[in-house]
Amino acid sequence: MSTDDTTTTDDSTSNCGASTTDTDDSTSSCGGASGSSDSSGCGASSDTDSNEQTVSATVDDFDADPGSLVAVGLGPGRPEGMTDRATAALADAEHIVGYTTYVDLLPDEITDDAEEIYDTPMCGEVSRTEEAVDRALAGNHVAIIGSGDPNVYALAGLALEITESKGATPSMLDFEVVPGVPAAQSCGARLGAPLVNDSVSISLSDHLTPMPEIESRLHAVASEEFTISIYNPWSRKRRENFQKACEILLAHRDADTPVGIVHGAGREDEEVEITTLGELESYGETDLIDMTTTVVIGNAETYVFDDRMVTPRGYETKYDY
Amino acid sequence: MSTDDTTTTDDSTSNCGASTTDTDDSTSSCGGASGSSDSSGCGASSDTDSNEQTVSATVDDFDADPGSLVAVGLGPGRPEGMTDRATAALADAEHIVGYTTYVDLLPDEITDDAEEIYDTPMCGEVSRTEEAVDRALAGNHVAIIGSGDPNVYALAGLALEITESKGATPSMLDFEVVPGVPAAQSCGARLGAPLVNDSVSISLSDHLTPMPEIESRLHAVASEEFTISIYNPWSRKRRENFQKACEILLAHRDADTPVGIVHGAGREDEEVEITTLGELESYGETDLIDMTTTVVIGNAETYVFDDRMVTPRGYETKYDY
Repeated sequence: MSTDDTTTTDDSTSNCGASTTDTDDSTSSCGGASGSSDSSGCGASSDTDSNEQTVSATVDDFDADPGSLVAVGLGPGRPEGMTDRATAALADAEHIVGYTTYVDLLPDEITDDAEEIYDTPMCGEVSRTEEAVDRALAGNHVAIIGSGDPNVYALAGLALEITESKGATPSMLDFEVVPGVPAAQSCGARLGAPLVNDSVSISLSDHLTPMPEIESRLHAVASEEFTISIYNPWSRKRRENFQKACEILLAHRDADTPVGIVHGAGREDEEVEITTLGELESYGETDLIDMTTTVVIGNAETYVFDDRMVTPRGYETKYDY
Repeated sequence: MSTDDTTTTDDSTSNCGASTTDTDDSTSSCGGASGSSDSSGCGASSDTDSNEQTVSATVDDFDADPGSLVAVGLGPGRPEGMTDRATAALADAEHIVGYTTYVDLLPDEITDDAEEIYDTPMCGEVSRTEEAVDRALAGNHVAIIGSGDPNVYALAGLALEITESKGATPSMLDFEVVPGVPAAQSCGARLGAPLVNDSVSISLSDHLTPMPEIESRLHAVASEEFTISIYNPWSRKRRENFQKACEILLAHRDADTPVGIVHGAGREDEEVEITTLGELESYGETDLIDMTTTVVIGNAETYVFDDRMVTPRGYETKYDY
């Protein structure tokens, strides 16, 4: 599953998985790696229940001086959307850890230069993040990557939580976050200027947040003039979350409120549609809305002009133009 | 006031300001430029009232075929925070238009290569944006720049509004937005992982949004578990907005809620402080909080660990680590 083309190095017996390019690295000497990346779907955990990924090695299990850990946001997906700082952080990293889809988005010069790439499919985020922390504690310079920004529904927090659970500290690992362009901004740019005022991001995934809390948050912000970026709007398992969200939004905002739908922003399968809140629910069963889609809900001032969404900042109330 | 070192070019008589490196360009042949950038403070308008910047030229006043207009987000400030796409867009631009402070942040190779730089001090955003639109309508390839992202309290919307007011269209100008890393993400990264869940951005500036609306929005989101990034938290003219915001937040959240304060993220005068909501108001009169500061308010789950703010995404409710 790994895309690593590494040659075995001398430190292969003391570092996490440094000798391996395949799923055998889950049994490497780093002590705590629970991940086996060969199972399909949410199967990066070695436990029978994929919701029961465990973290086992602690800081005391590592003999080496700690290395470093950096959480890098790649932005929208294509290399041109990465910051120079992100590119430099990946060039400096010995090991790059990430979800396979994101690793595949990296430029060849970065993946070719890395000593090791450890990638697992979706839903293995806990064991993958632990692998990154373990490799850093074992003395390696490690980058854990994700699309967008590490602070937006991403792994910066999990990396810190797992570091803490191991009795280690971020200072020990020179832990750093390299920010990236979040999906809301990538999609906003594609749509024009829909977010140019107070704005909110909400995920409709109830995997980690109970749906009643999500509903309550939607009510709170829809009744004020926030523009709303909806992450994880739809999956087969939770089509009713999307329907419910549309209902709540319609309870507070006009059916003709402009809505932008951006699928796969910055990727090859990018698709953009501008519609209205009244029509939004009908897109739920189309290919346009899936886990790679961000939906941007305008406020009462938002309008559509020449296929662009515009949310005025308020200049028109003070200036004559 | 301009940092332009341009030599006069042949098209200096047909393009907006192409012959000039100084404030005389406000009288150039582009017809509508209202800006005179030599006055201090909010003085980029030639009108006596700085709130009365006017837009006058329309699309019919331009003989040339339109050029292009791109709104480019620079991210946190240092060149390393720019995306490759932003760098490429600026390299392609003939004219670069922006607030002087942001122009000063550009790498020399970009400012040296541009045919013209038009920069004005703070508060000239309407006339500056019109200058950018006019230059594009006059046939030039123009980039208008800002820090952060063009969709976050920035000029992407104003550029579209002014384009519309002139009877032009974004398609006519191949109008494009190049997203950047917003201040909330730059500051979040500096603080650790404070924003890894549903999150909101609110500006405390009541220049364009009435304070009662801002207060109502603060109540709405503080009563739900959003993390909150506060932009424009303090200025001498509106110290009471900051006090009021602290009061509202404290009405909904514990006094020991972690709060991160980041001044000048990514710039030379960057300063970071982690405090509590109960202490926040006392920072209002210090140098730490001004218009370049972003304040990040944690939610009920946010905690501080080894000088990092962590807002759990919720993995700990499902996974054992």
